Amino acid sequence: MGVEFLKIKECDDALNIIQDLFDENYNFLSEEISCSEAYGRILYEDVYSRIDFPPFDKALKDGFAILSEDSFGASEENPNTLDVIDFLEAGSTTDKVVEKGKCIEISTGAALPEGSDAIVMVEYCEKFDDKVNLLTTATPSQDVASKGSDIKEGNLILKKGDFLNPGKIGVLLSQGFENIEVFKKPTVGVISSGNEVTMQSEELTHGKIYDVNGNMIKNAAISCGANAEFLGIVQDDYKLVKENIINALDEVDILLCSGGTSAGQGDVMRTVLDELGEVYVHGISVQPGKPTIVAVVNGKVVIGLPGNPVSALMIFNVFVAQALTKLSGINKEFENKIVKGKMTRRIHSPVGRMQYQLVKVDGENVHPIFKDSGAIFSLSTADGYVKVPKSVEILDEGENVEVYLFN
Amino acid sequence: MGVEFLKIKECDDALNIIQDLFDENYNFLSEEISCSEAYGRILYEDVYSRIDFPPFDKALKDGFAILSEDSFGASEENPNTLDVIDFLEAGSTTDKVVEKGKCIEISTGAALPEGSDAIVMVEYCEKFDDKVNLLTTATPSQDVASKGSDIKEGNLILKKGDFLNPGKIGVLLSQGFENIEVFKKPTVGVISSGNEVTMQSEELTHGKIYDVNGNMIKNAAISCGANAEFLGIVQDDYKLVKENIINALDEVDILLCSGGTSAGQGDVMRTVLDELGEVYVHGISVQPGKPTIVAVVNGKVVIGLPGNPVSALMIFNVFVAQALTKLSGINKEFENKIVKGKMTRRIHSPVGRMQYQLVKVDGENVHPIFKDSGAIFSLSTADGYVKVPKSVEILDEGENVEVYLFN
Repeated sequence: MGVEFLKIKECDDALNIIQDLFDENYNFLSEEISCSEAYGRILYEDVYSRIDFPPFDKALKDGFAILSEDSFGASEENPNTLDVIDFLEAGSTTDKVVEKGKCIEISTGAALPEGSDAIVMVEYCEKFDDKVNLLTTATPSQDVASKGSDIKEGNLILKKGDFLNPGKIGVLLSQGFENIEVFKKPTVGVISSGNEVTMQSEELTHGKIYDVNGNMIKNAAISCGANAEFLGIVQDDYKLVKENIINALDEVDILLCSGGTSAGQGDVMRTVLDELGEVYVHGISVQPGKPTIVAVVNGKVVIGLPGNPVSALMIFNVFVAQALTKLSGINKEFENKIVKGKMTRRIHSPVGRMQYQLVKVDGENVHPIFKDSGAIFSLSTADGYVKVPKSVEILDEGENVEVYLFN
Repeated sequence: MGVEFLKIKECDDALNIIQDLFDENYNFLSEEISCSEAYGRILYEDVYSRIDFPPFDKALKDGFAILSEDSFGASEENPNTLDVIDFLEAGSTTDKVVEKGKCIEISTGAALPEGSDAIVMVEYCEKFDDKVNLLTTATPSQDVASKGSDIKEGNLILKKGDFLNPGKIGVLLSQGFENIEVFKKPTVGVISSGNEVTMQSEELTHGKIYDVNGNMIKNAAISCGANAEFLGIVQDDYKLVKENIINALDEVDILLCSGGTSAGQGDVMRTVLDELGEVYVHGISVQPGKPTIVAVVNGKVVIGLPGNPVSALMIFNVFVAQALTKLSGINKEFENKIVKGKMTRRIHSPVGRMQYQLVKVDGENVHPIFKDSGAIFSLSTADGYVKVPKSVEILDEGENVEVYLFN
């Protein structure tokens, strides 16, 4: 019985189709979060300064706030003497005004009192009783950070798409932002289908294996900036698969299923997705991972990943991760994830299909991991993969390659 | 009044002292978490396989499970005919035994039925009624993944210190691990001290600025793998600072305070820490960030960061981040965070102090950000910093530099 694969898609075509379906079906959404929990989130909009910073003329040193002209000509030999009329700590204010012949003792960070225009550092002053000898001449604005000298109100301070690192969060906090609009995390649901898969909490009876794809792909989606949930194991049964997909799509933006994607008997995914929506891809010319399905149901992208965990993770990384990461607002991520190196051993690749070869990276050395695609333990050591284009049969020892690192 | 700085420490000495204090005062601890939420966590112990994988001889193809000798000599012209005695799906079992002349139809992933030792792919079979013609010869183990062929029980599969990426999580899941021991996140408390700092939720009155350090340093600690909490603003008052530090140390492993760390009047941090515990560092020969305090109180490290946010973040990054990241179990992080480039403009640096110059990185180009250390907006664009050693006065345009990237 079963269905037929559609015309097998080339890699680039499949990648473009998936990105186009994301572009057509999803809008970038935002959510407001607290700056206190913003690390790693992505700014949804340009941010402008709300206030001048510093918000007042600020003392940069401990010393005396004076009228600068009162210091003109002062020196160690010939100090000028002023009356000290108040003491001003950071965060305090005073009603007193600095007039000619008067000054106010001041701490770093305090607002310059009215009338004063300069600070003389405490090191250049001799205080006695309620007077002070200035031992040096100060220029106007000496050791003062003027109101707005760092930034004026209304300036662009951070840009849409900025990754919120601690420093940028600091900038927001300095401007009084308690909350900020960031890209909303897309919600991803994961369903594992298959009669042979069992939850880790259950006993493993003969013929069964533990489910890997559910929580592995959930974690992979999280690594792309999504909120992801494993929705459970569904038996390879047309009615159950259909029901579970319909229910899942009420809850999530994107649904990632695994298993049942081949064209054989018992592979119900294609049939169900044909009925519920439109299937755009069934079969990609890659190894591993050919039996992949891409569909849209009710304006939501549903991806049918292969049941084999290595294939499922590879297809997720190659075809889904980029679109998902982009939808999460993260732009730069992908550039940083490629490293260059040299193959330490020759690999043979099937002609006619793009091959994704798992590798371990050790400095410049790129070691291919030789296991068949069912070998889950290749993932114990794999740092990423090398692409072997469909026209290339051999990648020789010593050849320069780019490694796409896993998240 | 105030206190005196201790003998000013050189950078490397301060860094070593902090690392030593972490090593002496903290043990690496573990916590058990669910594999379903393990992304990004660090394995606390070597992990060994619990079961053979695959756990049974597994069919790699849809086809017929046979005694391989029953296929010997079979070809399209001269097929061998067998009785089909059952159909076995993945996850199912059968009581029937494959004997000479008999076979069982089988799906990919199913356990090989007793008696059989090979699969003939469905493509090389003609089924009719309850019989099948084999059109090819199969060798023993053909299209079978033997029990334990991927991994045998009791083998090392993941190592202490491994970063749990989705693939490694998949490996754990395949072995039936529901939970796993990972490095426990150290808990960090952050206190901002200063009379001039105000929460973002409050009105900004004259002479006040919004608190930056509390939530900025909290996020910085999170970026190093810690659980961090901003414990609030404390007035620059000896009794209040002391009380708050004592209370905080009941709750957290590591305490990061900011402000009040200079040697001036009103800078109470040093006095309080001298009384509560032992001060190891007060003053580091760096710019920005000289007034830094490192102390231990009741077996817990307390760092007094400068009040200036740019200085505070820089000191955190240079002196605290590495020890904290290491305590979180993360080892590799720091190697990846250095990029090389060329200065696009000359910078002058004070002789006698290590300078940390904020820079923006644009491909190969490293642009110095010229703002004084009080200028919080330099953090809008800074990607990291360049170290200018204390003996270097000028870093010339075009010079090769290493940039330490911010998290």
